[in-house]
Amino acid sequence: MTRILLNGKPAEHIHILDRGLQYGDGLFETLRVQSGQVPLWSYHWQRLQKGCQRLAIPVPEENILLQEMSALIGAAQQAVVKLIITRGEGPRGYAAPAPTRPSRIMILSEAAGTPADYWQHGVRLYPCQTRLGINPALAGIKHLNRLEQVLARNEWSGQEYQEGVLRDIDGNIVEGTMSNIFWCKDNQLYTPDLSRCGVEGVMREIVIGLAKQGSISITMGLWAESELVDAEEIFISNSLIGIWPVSYIFNKTFTVGPVTRQLQLMLQAEYAF
Amino acid sequence: MTRILLNGKPAEHIHILDRGLQYGDGLFETLRVQSGQVPLWSYHWQRLQKGCQRLAIPVPEENILLQEMSALIGAAQQAVVKLIITRGEGPRGYAAPAPTRPSRIMILSEAAGTPADYWQHGVRLYPCQTRLGINPALAGIKHLNRLEQVLARNEWSGQEYQEGVLRDIDGNIVEGTMSNIFWCKDNQLYTPDLSRCGVEGVMREIVIGLAKQGSISITMGLWAESELVDAEEIFISNSLIGIWPVSYIFNKTFTVGPVTRQLQLMLQAEYAF
Repeated sequence: MTRILLNGKPAEHIHILDRGLQYGDGLFETLRVQSGQVPLWSYHWQRLQKGCQRLAIPVPEENILLQEMSALIGAAQQAVVKLIITRGEGPRGYAAPAPTRPSRIMILSEAAGTPADYWQHGVRLYPCQTRLGINPALAGIKHLNRLEQVLARNEWSGQEYQEGVLRDIDGNIVEGTMSNIFWCKDNQLYTPDLSRCGVEGVMREIVIGLAKQGSISITMGLWAESELVDAEEIFISNSLIGIWPVSYIFNKTFTVGPVTRQLQLMLQAEYAF
Repeated sequence: MTRILLNGKPAEHIHILDRGLQYGDGLFETLRVQSGQVPLWSYHWQRLQKGCQRLAIPVPEENILLQEMSALIGAAQQAVVKLIITRGEGPRGYAAPAPTRPSRIMILSEAAGTPADYWQHGVRLYPCQTRLGINPALAGIKHLNRLEQVLARNEWSGQEYQEGVLRDIDGNIVEGTMSNIFWCKDNQLYTPDLSRCGVEGVMREIVIGLAKQGSISITMGLWAESELVDAEEIFISNSLIGIWPVSYIFNKTFTVGPVTRQLQLMLQAEYAF
């Protein structure tokens, strides 16, 4: 089951001169559909607007996106919507076309499998050798230039590892290939600062909010993997999986700790995960 | 005039699930068609193979590319072919689909305007504020993740500047938005090392070869803009424009010097520019 809308109309194809293909000139959001609704929309919408502003792509109208997304979801209850905004078609060359007519692409696909076992007992992380480049201009936003993630994700295959952990070229821990990472030590929560590289996940923002709500102090910064290995608890997050404890990383095993459990419970209570 | 072939067949559209659009998961080459031929094909083909190997995309068959390109060019004499190879269609997620069926896209468009005046008297370079991120894994190859170039090229508009110069996040001179850069001092030629970021242009390789042929010694390394400003001659290169002297950069004017002229003459003699 995959259904696609392009600028509001059912479609399978897009023009080859679209700058999304030519240059990766665009942004995307991956949205969890739960009971036919998109509960985290307001977070995704905030990030999408921020990304458009950063790339100087005209921000689409929210009500148009919501109408089209509702039509796309139809009667589906549990599903995933990938929303892509590109700078639209243009002639050869990096200069933005004038006027710019962004393309809106929405892809509905089956709900990602989120095995209860991962939520309960945790996942194993592969230590990716691919390093994230440092680029503050593109850091944080969810743009379409994702070759680093493609290279990293293809370093392992099979079922032994459910996610990979990425370091930057200076060796600092940054994120997973499709998730953000947190760890806990002495009741302090830590997560990498993402102003140099990485994606500021919607679920990361929610976890930070839940931590504050639960009076768990949280620190952002740059840390080498040794800091993470010394942690008491580790977990990853994204808007499809919620929070998954990490049971194995960098040759060390971890058990699921109380802070991770507390945040999972808060997430379940507030966002029906 | 724009004609497109997708996997050898006339097309205007490509599947939305193609990973070229989804992740910028692919490579491209921009080829100059001269008298109906592609004189620099062997250089482009070498770089394309290198890029495919780096990204683990199956290398297309050269004879298929050549046949399709010949059909696309038809009777055109002066034109540009943009060749794009993507990892092809796949389901959601960064993991490469198995089997991988790469997409071959060829776009024929009108010859770029290469005014004789730029060749003769030089061009003015805009000092881009966008910095190139450092990422050795993606440096050198001509991949589809080109947001940095898009951001840089859109820093200026109008006719005052013909190209922009890009520094990396550490302030080192790297390249133009669509060209490589060289400078000359005391009969020594310099060009940035591109193992950390930047694109190793086909014309850059040709210029390096011509310099060796002309007994002009050439050094590659990392240099701040002050080194470039102190140069006697500066020029940029790409496979469509050949060699353009730089007449203005970083608030300083330059005249066209003998080394630039010598290389231009060699290029004209060997490659009919």
